[in-house]
Amino acid sequence: MIERARAEALDAADPLATFRERFVHDDPGRIYVDGNSLGRLPKETAEALAARATEWGSRLVTAWSDWIDLPLSVGDLLGEAVLGARPGEVAVADSTTVNLYKLAAAALDGRPGGRAIVTDRDNFPTDRYVLEGLAAARGLELRLLECDPVEGPSAPDVAAACATRDVALVSLSHVAYRSGALADMAAISEAAHAAGALVLWDLSHSAGSVPVRLTETGADLAVGCTYKYLNAGPGAPAFLYVRSELLSELRSPIWGWFGQRDQFAMGPVYDPESGIARFLAGTPPVLDLTAIEAGARLVAEAGIKAIRVKSAALAELAVALHDAWLVPLGFELGTPRDPERRGAHVSLRHAEAWRVCRALIERANVVPDFRGPDAIRFGFPPLYTRFADVWEAFDRLRRLVEHGEHLEVEAKPARIT
Amino acid sequence: MIERARAEALDAADPLATFRERFVHDDPGRIYVDGNSLGRLPKETAEALAARATEWGSRLVTAWSDWIDLPLSVGDLLGEAVLGARPGEVAVADSTTVNLYKLAAAALDGRPGGRAIVTDRDNFPTDRYVLEGLAAARGLELRLLECDPVEGPSAPDVAAACATRDVALVSLSHVAYRSGALADMAAISEAAHAAGALVLWDLSHSAGSVPVRLTETGADLAVGCTYKYLNAGPGAPAFLYVRSELLSELRSPIWGWFGQRDQFAMGPVYDPESGIARFLAGTPPVLDLTAIEAGARLVAEAGIKAIRVKSAALAELAVALHDAWLVPLGFELGTPRDPERRGAHVSLRHAEAWRVCRALIERANVVPDFRGPDAIRFGFPPLYTRFADVWEAFDRLRRLVEHGEHLEVEAKPARIT
Repeated sequence: MIERARAEALDAADPLATFRERFVHDDPGRIYVDGNSLGRLPKETAEALAARATEWGSRLVTAWSDWIDLPLSVGDLLGEAVLGARPGEVAVADSTTVNLYKLAAAALDGRPGGRAIVTDRDNFPTDRYVLEGLAAARGLELRLLECDPVEGPSAPDVAAACATRDVALVSLSHVAYRSGALADMAAISEAAHAAGALVLWDLSHSAGSVPVRLTETGADLAVGCTYKYLNAGPGAPAFLYVRSELLSELRSPIWGWFGQRDQFAMGPVYDPESGIARFLAGTPPVLDLTAIEAGARLVAEAGIKAIRVKSAALAELAVALHDAWLVPLGFELGTPRDPERRGAHVSLRHAEAWRVCRALIERANVVPDFRGPDAIRFGFPPLYTRFADVWEAFDRLRRLVEHGEHLEVEAKPARIT
Repeated sequence: MIERARAEALDAADPLATFRERFVHDDPGRIYVDGNSLGRLPKETAEALAARATEWGSRLVTAWSDWIDLPLSVGDLLGEAVLGARPGEVAVADSTTVNLYKLAAAALDGRPGGRAIVTDRDNFPTDRYVLEGLAAARGLELRLLECDPVEGPSAPDVAAACATRDVALVSLSHVAYRSGALADMAAISEAAHAAGALVLWDLSHSAGSVPVRLTETGADLAVGCTYKYLNAGPGAPAFLYVRSELLSELRSPIWGWFGQRDQFAMGPVYDPESGIARFLAGTPPVLDLTAIEAGARLVAEAGIKAIRVKSAALAELAVALHDAWLVPLGFELGTPRDPERRGAHVSLRHAEAWRVCRALIERANVVPDFRGPDAIRFGFPPLYTRFADVWEAFDRLRRLVEHGEHLEVEAKPARIT
């Protein structure tokens, strides 16, 4: 039996506990364990956004002399505090999807002899679609790894898929969006490199939740979103990373004026910047960059190592509660059991996952999210999630299912919107 | 002699005069005639942004059920109020640069027999670079119109460039960023269509300043920014337009999850939406969409026809003042003389344009912008520019140059940043 008191004791000893008050919480009864489609609003972000809007109103176009550096300065902040990258390797720009496209196309242009792209069948939809589109446009094969749905892709999976030595690019998620499985970045990079392929990582579910070591693990390329564990707000733009050694070799397929050397000379011929700015395209969104900077500073202040320690403990508690309370109710763990092999969310599988998820939101004021066909994702962002929240969320969950309340909500519609 | 009183009389009779107070003006001495890199901050936008941030903090992920429609609903608002498009033809997404890339690539894919892309040598840099990149990637010719630098591209220019009937795409700006020349959209579209080419318009300097009639003029494709005359803030994302009749035929090169039919089924194969949503890519930026909606509503409330009437009168006053005061000081009109042939900004050419521009900002509190090699752009957004502002800006300008104050500021640096 796991008592609530045990969770409260963990909270009392939590060195990150005070970060919770840095975020807006206007419904004390709600347990927000979205996993993680949208991080909470940091109070500092609300203030920074208002200040930036005031600056726009006041300084107008003259403020661009300061704003113009934001894509690279916020990129460097992310690179150092979150991504384990060196200065000049990260920029903030565009959406995760557009950045995936830019970097994947650049990699394919950089490996013109390649005949295949490797990803896994359970990769996030936009990643699969972007790669499918590039493969179709260039007459390449999109080779889909068939991995264990819980454990995700492994280095042997990648080595086997690359054994034909015709692979230009391997593109995977660092933390799987559904299962939460954490890929072994170093081993997979090594397997891909041994076969002559470049590796492009999607860090959307790991940036801000798991230490990412892009330099150390030999990563070539990466992208990721900022609205999950970086708390930059709904649809905030993404980041991209290109390993320094590849910068002179690779170029974006989208030749935009923010990638142009001596941009304001507005010269007749495209001549890309030598640094990471060559992967910028259009005018950067200043308000969004403000929110990303504020969110990244919070993560930097807490420290990604401390975040990981707490994250692992939160997930451990969730797994223990699942085993104790939920297995008898038809639940199954959809996340690796090994703490070293998972990110910051825990996925539970259930035959009625859709209805359980809806009932939790509508009747129990617990907000996870559903990921088809049968998973409920529970995210535990360490900056604002208490151990008692995990306990309370799963306590409400077990009571709800025990009472059959989920059977009272509507079944999953044919089309989810 | 044009007296200040004449300008003040025009202000007294201005039906749009009250809109000025809907914007933030915190320095009453400053004349903001940026032309137009960044529109002013509407007071309603500051409020809407704060409300949206509050909604993020409060409703969290559950608010996505409302936010998810914003790219198309704000697109339709722009389509009706600003662009002369039909419902379902406009979406807000990405930057102007990325949208140019998506639509130009779609057009080239849709005209596989074409061997050339036509644009003009004075088109905005990002447009030229995007097209240069696509031409290079596909082995096409980028055919550059050599137009009159003041009058811009004409239908005969386009007809001549397309006479070889090997052109897949003509891409031009509706209002030229430097000269302010307004292209004849209907005649140019007709000339391109007669030669079998599609036409892609950049509306960045016309959206919100000039009535755009996409449907009526037979435009195929268009993009444009929202941070100029739509006042949506620094780097706010752009819009894109695809003529309904082309939607089934054309598809984006970037296959993203927001373009996917039944997106949240997260199915294995990309199957694009049938409507304009097929040109969406990643997760839309909700805060930016909020600012675009607020800015577009202001334009809709004023009415684009009334905006155009005032805009033409503001430019007429500027041209008259230029002729009376500035010609003797070495200035030359860099904008068409015919009011029907220009947008909302007036470009003045001067041998010392860079220093005059700097001196205006630093010593006269007048903020235009410089566009190389020798142009100063004066923008007159009708929603917040008074006739007296035009008079005052040019009066300060003539005094400054008469006194040689521009010769006291530093010369143009080798690299402008």
